[in-house]
Amino acid sequence: MAIPVLLCAVLLVTSVLSSKSKYIQYNTTSTIVPGKLNVHLVPHTHDDVGWLKTVDQYYVGSNKYMQGACVQNVLDSLVPALLADKNRKFIYVEQAFFQRWWREQSEALQNTVKQLVNSGQLEFINGGMCMHDEAATHYIDMIDQTTLGHQFLKQEFGVTPRIGWQIDPFGHSAVQAYLLGAEVGFDSLFFARIDYQDRAKRKNDKSLEVVWRGSKSLGSSAQIFSGAFPENYEPPNNFYFEVNDDSPIIQDDTSLFDYNVPERVNEFVSAAISQANITRTNHIMWTMGTDFKYQYAHTWFRQMDKFINYVNQDGRVHALYSTPSIYTDAKYAANEAWPIKTEDYFPYADRVNAYWTGYFTSRPAIKGYVRVMSGYYLAARQLEFFKGKSASGPKTDSLADALAIAQHHDAVSGTEKQHVANDYAKRLSIGYTEAEKVVAASLACILEATSKTNCTSPKTQFYQCPLLNITYCPASEVDLSNGKNLVIVVYNPLGWKREDVIRIPVINENVGVRDSSGKEIQSQLLPILNASLALRNYHVKAYLGASPTVNPKYWLAFSVAVPPLGFSTYYISSAKQSGAATISDRKTAYQSGNQSQSIEVGPGNLKLVYSGNEGKLTDYINTRSKVKESIDQTYSFYVGYGNDGTQTSQASGAYIFRPNGTFPIKSEGKFPLTVLKGPIIHEVHQQINSWIYQTTRLYKGKEHAEVEFIVGPIPIDDGFGKEIATQIKTNLASNKTFYSDSNGRDFITRIRNYRKDWDLQVNQPVAGNYYPINLGIYLRDESKEFSVLVDRSVGGSSLVDGQVELMLHRRLLQDDGRGVGEALNETVCVNDKCTGLSVVGKYYLRIDPAEEGGGRWRRSFGQEIYSPLLLAFTQDEVGDNWTNSHLTTFSGMDSSYTLPDNVAILTLQELDDGKLLLRLAHLYEIGEDKDLSVMATVELKKVFPNKKIKQISETSLSANQERSEMEKKRLVWKVEEGTSQGPHVSRGGPVEAEKLVVQLAPMEIRTFILSF
Amino acid sequence: MAIPVLLCAVLLVTSVLSSKSKYIQYNTTSTIVPGKLNVHLVPHTHDDVGWLKTVDQYYVGSNKYMQGACVQNVLDSLVPALLADKNRKFIYVEQAFFQRWWREQSEALQNTVKQLVNSGQLEFINGGMCMHDEAATHYIDMIDQTTLGHQFLKQEFGVTPRIGWQIDPFGHSAVQAYLLGAEVGFDSLFFARIDYQDRAKRKNDKSLEVVWRGSKSLGSSAQIFSGAFPENYEPPNNFYFEVNDDSPIIQDDTSLFDYNVPERVNEFVSAAISQANITRTNHIMWTMGTDFKYQYAHTWFRQMDKFINYVNQDGRVHALYSTPSIYTDAKYAANEAWPIKTEDYFPYADRVNAYWTGYFTSRPAIKGYVRVMSGYYLAARQLEFFKGKSASGPKTDSLADALAIAQHHDAVSGTEKQHVANDYAKRLSIGYTEAEKVVAASLACILEATSKTNCTSPKTQFYQCPLLNITYCPASEVDLSNGKNLVIVVYNPLGWKREDVIRIPVINENVGVRDSSGKEIQSQLLPILNASLALRNYHVKAYLGASPTVNPKYWLAFSVAVPPLGFSTYYISSAKQSGAATISDRKTAYQSGNQSQSIEVGPGNLKLVYSGNEGKLTDYINTRSKVKESIDQTYSFYVGYGNDGTQTSQASGAYIFRPNGTFPIKSEGKFPLTVLKGPIIHEVHQQINSWIYQTTRLYKGKEHAEVEFIVGPIPIDDGFGKEIATQIKTNLASNKTFYSDSNGRDFITRIRNYRKDWDLQVNQPVAGNYYPINLGIYLRDESKEFSVLVDRSVGGSSLVDGQVELMLHRRLLQDDGRGVGEALNETVCVNDKCTGLSVVGKYYLRIDPAEEGGGRWRRSFGQEIYSPLLLAFTQDEVGDNWTNSHLTTFSGMDSSYTLPDNVAILTLQELDDGKLLLRLAHLYEIGEDKDLSVMATVELKKVFPNKKIKQISETSLSANQERSEMEKKRLVWKVEEGTSQGPHVSRGGPVEAEKLVVQLAPMEIRTFILSF
Repeated sequence: MAIPVLLCAVLLVTSVLSSKSKYIQYNTTSTIVPGKLNVHLVPHTHDDVGWLKTVDQYYVGSNKYMQGACVQNVLDSLVPALLADKNRKFIYVEQAFFQRWWREQSEALQNTVKQLVNSGQLEFINGGMCMHDEAATHYIDMIDQTTLGHQFLKQEFGVTPRIGWQIDPFGHSAVQAYLLGAEVGFDSLFFARIDYQDRAKRKNDKSLEVVWRGSKSLGSSAQIFSGAFPENYEPPNNFYFEVNDDSPIIQDDTSLFDYNVPERVNEFVSAAISQANITRTNHIMWTMGTDFKYQYAHTWFRQMDKFINYVNQDGRVHALYSTPSIYTDAKYAANEAWPIKTEDYFPYADRVNAYWTGYFTSRPAIKGYVRVMSGYYLAARQLEFFKGKSASGPKTDSLADALAIAQHHDAVSGTEKQHVANDYAKRLSIGYTEAEKVVAASLACILEATSKTNCTSPKTQFYQCPLLNITYCPASEVDLSNGKNLVIVVYNPLGWKREDVIRIPVINENVGVRDSSGKEIQSQLLPILNASLALRNYHVKAYLGASPTVNPKYWLAFSVAVPPLGFSTYYISSAKQSGAATISDRKTAYQSGNQSQSIEVGPGNLKLVYSGNEGKLTDYINTRSKVKESIDQTYSFYVGYGNDGTQTSQASGAYIFRPNGTFPIKSEGKFPLTVLKGPIIHEVHQQINSWIYQTTRLYKGKEHAEVEFIVGPIPIDDGFGKEIATQIKTNLASNKTFYSDSNGRDFITRIRNYRKDWDLQVNQPVAGNYYPINLGIYLRDESKEFSVLVDRSVGGSSLVDGQVELMLHRRLLQDDGRGVGEALNETVCVNDKCTGLSVVGKYYLRIDPAEEGGGRWRRSFGQEIYSPLLLAFTQDEVGDNWTNSHLTTFSGMDSSYTLPDNVAILTLQELDDGKLLLRLAHLYEIGEDKDLSVMATVELKKVFPNKKIKQISETSLSANQERSEMEKKRLVWKVEEGTSQGPHVSRGGPVEAEKLVVQLAPMEIRTFILSF
Repeated sequence: MAIPVLLCAVLLVTSVLSSKSKYIQYNTTSTIVPGKLNVHLVPHTHDDVGWLKTVDQYYVGSNKYMQGACVQNVLDSLVPALLADKNRKFIYVEQAFFQRWWREQSEALQNTVKQLVNSGQLEFINGGMCMHDEAATHYIDMIDQTTLGHQFLKQEFGVTPRIGWQIDPFGHSAVQAYLLGAEVGFDSLFFARIDYQDRAKRKNDKSLEVVWRGSKSLGSSAQIFSGAFPENYEPPNNFYFEVNDDSPIIQDDTSLFDYNVPERVNEFVSAAISQANITRTNHIMWTMGTDFKYQYAHTWFRQMDKFINYVNQDGRVHALYSTPSIYTDAKYAANEAWPIKTEDYFPYADRVNAYWTGYFTSRPAIKGYVRVMSGYYLAARQLEFFKGKSASGPKTDSLADALAIAQHHDAVSGTEKQHVANDYAKRLSIGYTEAEKVVAASLACILEATSKTNCTSPKTQFYQCPLLNITYCPASEVDLSNGKNLVIVVYNPLGWKREDVIRIPVINENVGVRDSSGKEIQSQLLPILNASLALRNYHVKAYLGASPTVNPKYWLAFSVAVPPLGFSTYYISSAKQSGAATISDRKTAYQSGNQSQSIEVGPGNLKLVYSGNEGKLTDYINTRSKVKESIDQTYSFYVGYGNDGTQTSQASGAYIFRPNGTFPIKSEGKFPLTVLKGPIIHEVHQQINSWIYQTTRLYKGKEHAEVEFIVGPIPIDDGFGKEIATQIKTNLASNKTFYSDSNGRDFITRIRNYRKDWDLQVNQPVAGNYYPINLGIYLRDESKEFSVLVDRSVGGSSLVDGQVELMLHRRLLQDDGRGVGEALNETVCVNDKCTGLSVVGKYYLRIDPAEEGGGRWRRSFGQEIYSPLLLAFTQDEVGDNWTNSHLTTFSGMDSSYTLPDNVAILTLQELDDGKLLLRLAHLYEIGEDKDLSVMATVELKKVFPNKKIKQISETSLSANQERSEMEKKRLVWKVEEGTSQGPHVSRGGPVEAEKLVVQLAPMEIRTFILSF
């Protein structure tokens, strides 16, 4: 017989169990108790709309090798869990997932869910298709994706989300707070990720919860109660209850061993008190969930039931099922005075040396693609409206869906895995392809002059050229010697008449251009360089699978003028008979570097001067405004930290920018500066090194320079990842100060190595001064203002007075340890041979005299960048007279009318019920421009000249409730004494049904639903 | 703008999705289709009743750090999953878990579950408290734990499980098949683990499914259809659907990407066909689940719904929700002739060099404890019956529960983690402590001569000494000089009158012993050696927390005679006044080794001879039977493989015995052989080395030797794990053949390096010849039979002709890679200082002349080992006349009656409804003994002399159905032509209500429910 076990057992006899267990009914009926610390348990799941897996994979739960996550399980298991106890509550956030699930449910289940929503057990929070990023997103995309989610919730459930819930994005923007928060009608906004230094200070002075005024112009009229969580968006340590989470469960069956109710209650109370110590009022929120949790909702609720039961029996603190709405109402009822927060929460560092500023640039290609699609979607909806929405399709809806998903904080942010980035691109491409059909059909309908709302099968077949960026346009690369005309319809989505230069590739020099009236107009040929052709052919092969069969020889450039919300038509024809004279006129003058004299380029007021020997940019001269400024432009690269392979160091990666030294990129000298001059454009071509090519363009009618860069493949054979930046240096005495936009909207003052909210401890003097740039960045001194605008989201800074730096591309070999688990090393492959991804992009620069300011250019030209002219191509029949049978110019507005310079149409969209969604935006901030930062007016009757507006109602920004209702419900928060109420805020007045004139105050965006 | 992503997208436009998804209703109504291959999907979970976590931890889901498993989740989530589709089915196995869960459910939910059981959606399979081990378990424990589970199912649900489901145990016993299978009334038995060579052959000739006749004696009357799974008890590869399993789910939403219905259907069909190729009939079973799966049952059922729907749409094979019962009925209906299987499936190797024969010995201490408790439980239930079961307790139920759980295949098997082993011991101890009170109260009631069925508060306080094995018995270590008597009540749980020697520690030599009649009887004092005291004091300190305060000086031994199912009383008193003469008589003669002459010991017929110089055992002589045999006994150790730390090699561990060389243990010489001789006992003490101590005992009235060993702490400072074996070598010409018991019941012929069922490829000549020993092992030649009996489950073999080897203890430093994740390195600690665990155990040996055979000894003495005399201690008052006021002898049976020598009472237990559960067992196999292998009879009237049997019904072995009903339902399987039907099988006839005489044929066990 055994000794020890027997003895062991005898000792333990004291722990005799109680009698048999039985069914326990937990008391979960608790609501707020005034005198106690109320612990609001907020059951939630955070479901990334793509990250390590694609959105569909997350939804159905496939590809578990990448991540064990299945949103279908979450929603499937949630319903019975909520039905099991009516006190249980849950919030659901990401509508891209919810909509997928909803479509698959039986009607009976849908009705059950509707009851859960009606009873408040299930509450929709945030309510956009995704939890969008806040750094790399454009505000129009944020609005669109939120609207898409909110529309569905309104239609299916009749509900309006009350709360902003941006718990995961990597820093928080002003636009999120005031525009996507207050203007949407949210009562509060919650998030988790703020700078670790900021968080420490806020915990110390109990200012994690604030009243946030994100907009200088709209001030307190668009403020929102906002809370940063004390740590993250997860439960306190040891309170995780997913199926296999290893937090101790409550074992309350006295007939079993390990009964632990007292220990667990003590831990609960202690965690609650520790949070109460950094929180104002006696309400604290516990975010009970995290990424993709509640796959079996029961496991969480069972534990929370027990905690509520036993903690409340204990009585030291009070636990209850809650939602952020209930929490917000409790905060509001406490009548506390809150600190004011202005501006934003960028940049975000989660610890020393870990600035999440790399992702401002990560995946510049997809960031560019999203921006192009965003502009295209805006235009396509306009044309869809002009034609009349088709019930049977094609529609713009799939592009809307794809764009919405692409705003996710692991999508356009560039922090997803490569296969997921590919999925976003695929979705955008599918959406684009359908939207392209809408555009083609609408243009055909309009110019065939059939009924605008009832055009089913127009004859004209339009082609578009989404790959013009790589010199690929089959529609224009045609032989016109048979006498046909290439017809180009140029559509302008802006509300202003617009003049611009367009360019298309052509296969020979024998071409002429005529305008809508048939008049020959000036054009210019620019030779297509071999480098461009190589780039074109490689990528067409890589992505379309076959090399192009023809090679274009020239870019044909010419000026176009297009009415607001309308189009003009241009004709390209064989010009053999019109003689070589015109051709030689249009031919480009060549000029090469390596000469001692400086080179001045610029066909208009703006001149750029290059040094003759080095080919370096030296001077910026505007002959009109008399601005003259020394200017220098360079490239450099940062070497990403972490190449040494040590596990402890923080590497540079998809999220994090952690440079380990910066290295200038010297032009290698062997490539001469090449200047192409013509009547319309001057181009300066510079091969900076073997993998950076730059073209600077100056246009006759424009006072800015356009810089197009091709960066890549970034070499990594030395074993170092590299982050490529460009610096544009002037002599402006900018005094550490620069301005960067918030999601392409408001500009925010940035001061180098400084934070307004706390005493910054500088540990990353480069990465810690980077900010997201969506529209532009500028700086100024007493005499001048230097602005740079971008064509997509990038990271940027001003690291030296007078200088602007943009990060253009990143190729890294290490993962930065924030979950994506891949190095950001994008490639492009032909026949399984892969090279680093090249990126083609543009930025634009301009220097204005201080008294004029750059605001006007930034705002007007910024809109042109966002909404480029849309080109559609077709050919007429030989001998056909296009002009006779087709409308050649068109404006959707009254021909006498144009929007004021300070107003843009953000949305012009026919809804499924036939109504119109209209969004108008004032483009200027208070004080931004001496003439345009004023109240603007839009005459709707002239915007819709042929339609009778039967009804107009102003709504919240996401169009899911009447604006007046929203204002009525708005909570009025007390702020701390001594806090300035800010400048007087003006808002446009009500729209009178008679006049139908919309007033817009600076920075105001107004949303209307119209019926005709 | 970005190049590549844009292009990428364009390419992929072809994969346009279909329109929006919608709700899909899956067709799961399929039943068996005759012409097709039917794939029986059997949803199941395999829930270990303790392994890496304790049973309670598995149930509530705590300690997830050890393993992410929560049985509560399985059962919680199962109910809604079954309710969601009435075609879904599930089997549940382990009643220890199910009962925990059941007790915690509301009545409403219990009613729902009852409906699910009634409708057949939820079927209980196996139905014992656990899925017991089949190697280290005693058949009585197997019966008890099965009965406990089956009783509950019968009471709560009125159901009788139909199927044996031993899917995980590591090899399969004959007793499991015929006794716990056929005799329980099961229609089939399924399991997964058989030898890899056996499996390969069976796959090849389609003999994984057989008709198994496990008993030579009961033959076809106790056969059962049995199936070994083709691989394991899991689904085919890639068909796992736990929440985060990474098998591909069916993605059938055409509006999402990655639609994969055709691929998944193809994989299903291909896996089915590959299984059909090794299976007879067109029915195959897929075990859809594995360890602790279905934590969220929905995830499995959703996928299976889809498979059934789409596979049946496809039509190549036919899928259906099924259970092993449905599968068995389908097999039966196929009217196929099946191969016959006899004997068992031991030992089990899952691959070359990986024999799971280590666990036959792993944790010898807990194996011993289980066996002791098993015997105690049998006795305690008898006494509980005599007294009448108390509704308010104490009861034997918690010991029943603890013992039931301890039979689990990771409990008594020794393959659990250390903390789990501790938990089993704790449960046994708690159960024992309560049962001890039942025993004490019952004895007190009986001897106080109060009403036997209505005794509530007897005066006599009895103490028991469970730690006698380490010389610790506070009740006997008392000073009797005050004139009190130590009263010892000796209870005999066997149905025969019994004479035996008992021994108790006393603190001085001045003691005398009187029997029930008050007559002084012979006794013997044996000095307690310092080694025993050290062992005692260390372990009492280690496990009771404090050192004993007195030290006993002698073992007092004396012979006792006890009636069947009854007790005798003995009195120990101070013997100061009775003079030293008796004391000197009783004193022990000392004799030391190291002398040239041989030493002969033995107070009776049996003599053992030791060599004088070496102190080695040399001869075995029985003066009565004239047996004389050379005999040698040695110790050796195996060094466990895997100490080299290489990952690829198979280490020796808790499961696997993989020796890397064997090393003899030489007696170190410095410890002389010590012989203690007295009138009752002769003892030979041998200190084999510093960590092995052995005592050989010969008793006056007995013809066997008892060997007690203390092994440990096994040294490991050399870095080698060791497995300690003893070899007893005779000169018998056993011709490679030996016999080992099946779960303590039938003996099975073993032939070294040979398997009956296939042509064995020998790769482990030691480990591959090990078998589990529960009762004993023997071998024979033409003249003699050499038997060794054990006191617990151990591994053993005969590696050389004439020799028997037992493995006694194992201490290993490597994990063997089968999941437990710990090295089997048991320790015992005092004040945080730990030493290797020591094990105290016994084995017994005897050599009989061939014509007598050893069967009689093995069976009769085997019952005595299993059911030792139960000692209860108390003291009388000084001057009190115990005899006058107390019953001093008692028998539960008629005083003139005793059970025949070939019958034992396995169960005598009052049920909760007041009825009696009686199990009688014939102890002999056909041909085992010339006199006793015959039909036996038991006269129930004399077994229950004072009670009137109102009703008697014979039941299945687990007492959950009438035996006649069971026989009526039994499926009669066709076996392959040419298969012998085996010897004629006799069974006892029906019990006539008048006579109440039970007949028992050899090996028959009959179970009755009696009402009085």
